[in-house]
Amino acid sequence: MPTLMKQELESLTADIFRHAGAPVDLAQQVAEVLVDNHMAGHDSHGILRIPEYLKSIVDGEIVPTARPEVIQETPVSALVQGHWALGQATGIYAADLAIAKAKAKAKAKAHHLAVVSVVQAAHTGRLAAFTERAARQEVVMFMAIGTVDRPMTAPFGGAAAVPDTNPVAFSLPNPDGPPITLDIATSAIAAGKVKVAKARHENLPPDVILDKAGRPSVNPQDFIDGGFLLPFGGHKGYALAVIAELLSGPLIGAESFPAVTQRSGIFIFAMDAALFRAKPDYAQALAQRLGQIKGVPPAQGFTEVLVPGEPEARTRTRREKEGIPIPDDTWQAVRQAAQSVGCEI
Amino acid sequence: MPTLMKQELESLTADIFRHAGAPVDLAQQVAEVLVDNHMAGHDSHGILRIPEYLKSIVDGEIVPTARPEVIQETPVSALVQGHWALGQATGIYAADLAIAKAKAKAKAKAHHLAVVSVVQAAHTGRLAAFTERAARQEVVMFMAIGTVDRPMTAPFGGAAAVPDTNPVAFSLPNPDGPPITLDIATSAIAAGKVKVAKARHENLPPDVILDKAGRPSVNPQDFIDGGFLLPFGGHKGYALAVIAELLSGPLIGAESFPAVTQRSGIFIFAMDAALFRAKPDYAQALAQRLGQIKGVPPAQGFTEVLVPGEPEARTRTRREKEGIPIPDDTWQAVRQAAQSVGCEI
Repeated sequence: MPTLMKQELESLTADIFRHAGAPVDLAQQVAEVLVDNHMAGHDSHGILRIPEYLKSIVDGEIVPTARPEVIQETPVSALVQGHWALGQATGIYAADLAIAKAKAKAKAKAHHLAVVSVVQAAHTGRLAAFTERAARQEVVMFMAIGTVDRPMTAPFGGAAAVPDTNPVAFSLPNPDGPPITLDIATSAIAAGKVKVAKARHENLPPDVILDKAGRPSVNPQDFIDGGFLLPFGGHKGYALAVIAELLSGPLIGAESFPAVTQRSGIFIFAMDAALFRAKPDYAQALAQRLGQIKGVPPAQGFTEVLVPGEPEARTRTRREKEGIPIPDDTWQAVRQAAQSVGCEI
Repeated sequence: MPTLMKQELESLTADIFRHAGAPVDLAQQVAEVLVDNHMAGHDSHGILRIPEYLKSIVDGEIVPTARPEVIQETPVSALVQGHWALGQATGIYAADLAIAKAKAKAKAKAHHLAVVSVVQAAHTGRLAAFTERAARQEVVMFMAIGTVDRPMTAPFGGAAAVPDTNPVAFSLPNPDGPPITLDIATSAIAAGKVKVAKARHENLPPDVILDKAGRPSVNPQDFIDGGFLLPFGGHKGYALAVIAELLSGPLIGAESFPAVTQRSGIFIFAMDAALFRAKPDYAQALAQRLGQIKGVPPAQGFTEVLVPGEPEARTRTRREKEGIPIPDDTWQAVRQAAQSVGCEI
């Protein structure tokens, strides 16, 4: 199993996307996001996805030379047409636009809030890569994605798939530590995690998938063979999935743009964390509240209470030093995909 | 078990709060919200709460004559000091302010977005009463509440309670039907539902509470005797609880205002549903997507797939005709509480 340092992995990933036709800056953004996902420990959203993205380029579902474009704009909002650009580059474009609006200082624009929505967005992967980008710049960010492509998740009480895994993320800045981040698939498990389990030849936990006949299963292959995911937390996770779907679909008009073959809409809300109070006061109150939560004695089977985003931050620290291990079959699949675009890694 | 029509129950509820010292308009708002909760079928947030609120008035935790006040404001935001007014009145005040900002038409104010936060908020009860108020006026609304009072819920992996049940709600307008509403406690069960189970002498489902020693229990009394709630959906519900806590606490400065004895902060985001597209286009796309979801065949044990907010809308239709049944012991407790403020019902 090869282990690569962050810089190395970013560089070879960018190289692959350049060979696949992306301009230097977009290839670099995709690499940055995919490697950030590895740094956070979410290997399911890292280079494992490269073969799938290269196939989407061949199939015309991702346009590697395309750039997102603002088609409606006010000082506090923007509607972005993604033009099926590489999803990670679209995510960065939309997040940076929302951050800039939330942080605008010019008198007529200093509203400290923004909503940015995207139509024609390809697969962006892990949302925290974008919401934590905001949090590191002292901006609170909420992001939701629904989809109109291959459905994966059954609605609560339903026996067929309609929504997708519809992820939502929410990050808050943490001046004294890593961002506080919720980043969840509204399915009981991310499709990417099913793929990782299959790659590792592991079983899934119970109650996260059904097979294509609607029967419970722990075998990742049953999902791949036409099964579907269950929502997390029963009707609650299902309700959150529907909200994500509607925010990033009907509310913004995602279905009305042409060539909706794969992913589609993104909904982003951004707010300057200093809207209501000065940063030192926020930092102090935040540290105190997080300390209270972390001060809870561990339950049986746990060694400590962590706050959301903390496991990822720890993996990041470790991988900064030790590098990122890549499973052999992922490495082989990425090598082959790279060769298909004339890139030797 | 008495059954009362909506108007009757609203009228006697308002009467009780007037006797407890509230001005006519505030008493009416509290009654409107409590009865709306019954209409939606959430009896746990209805008149069952009156004895507790009257006790809070006696204890000085709720000030029945107080009115919320805006202490910071921009065209797209406001910070409201609740002054420990009746929570339902504070919820209406804050929601209406956010709705007005999101719908403002004057050129310098027509941003179609708003964030309104509240400090010193007493118990508001069911958040959908406010977010659906927005949705009925074609405004999308998100609302989150955290607390600094008696903690009820254990963090994921923890063996003591720190956060409260930290509810979040999200409503979208539905031009052709009832609002689409997510309204969930981030605990596996609302404390109010535990009280309802006890009132009905029923057991709880498994995995929703622990007793005070941290052992699983299905007896509602074990929660009341110092036990605590579990987050819904494991680490995912826990993460959502922490986000609600931080949005409505450290981010807005809830802890820095005096006399924080009971509830405290509210965070509201509101957006005009017509920000990005015309209403008929939204209505059509929404109807189509909801139709796809509802078209999924039911799983075993279900008769149909419902969308979030639909069960409540059906109860509302039924109770408009048939009235609201009140369990005998709730009715007796409310009568006694009413008598304590000199009100015969």
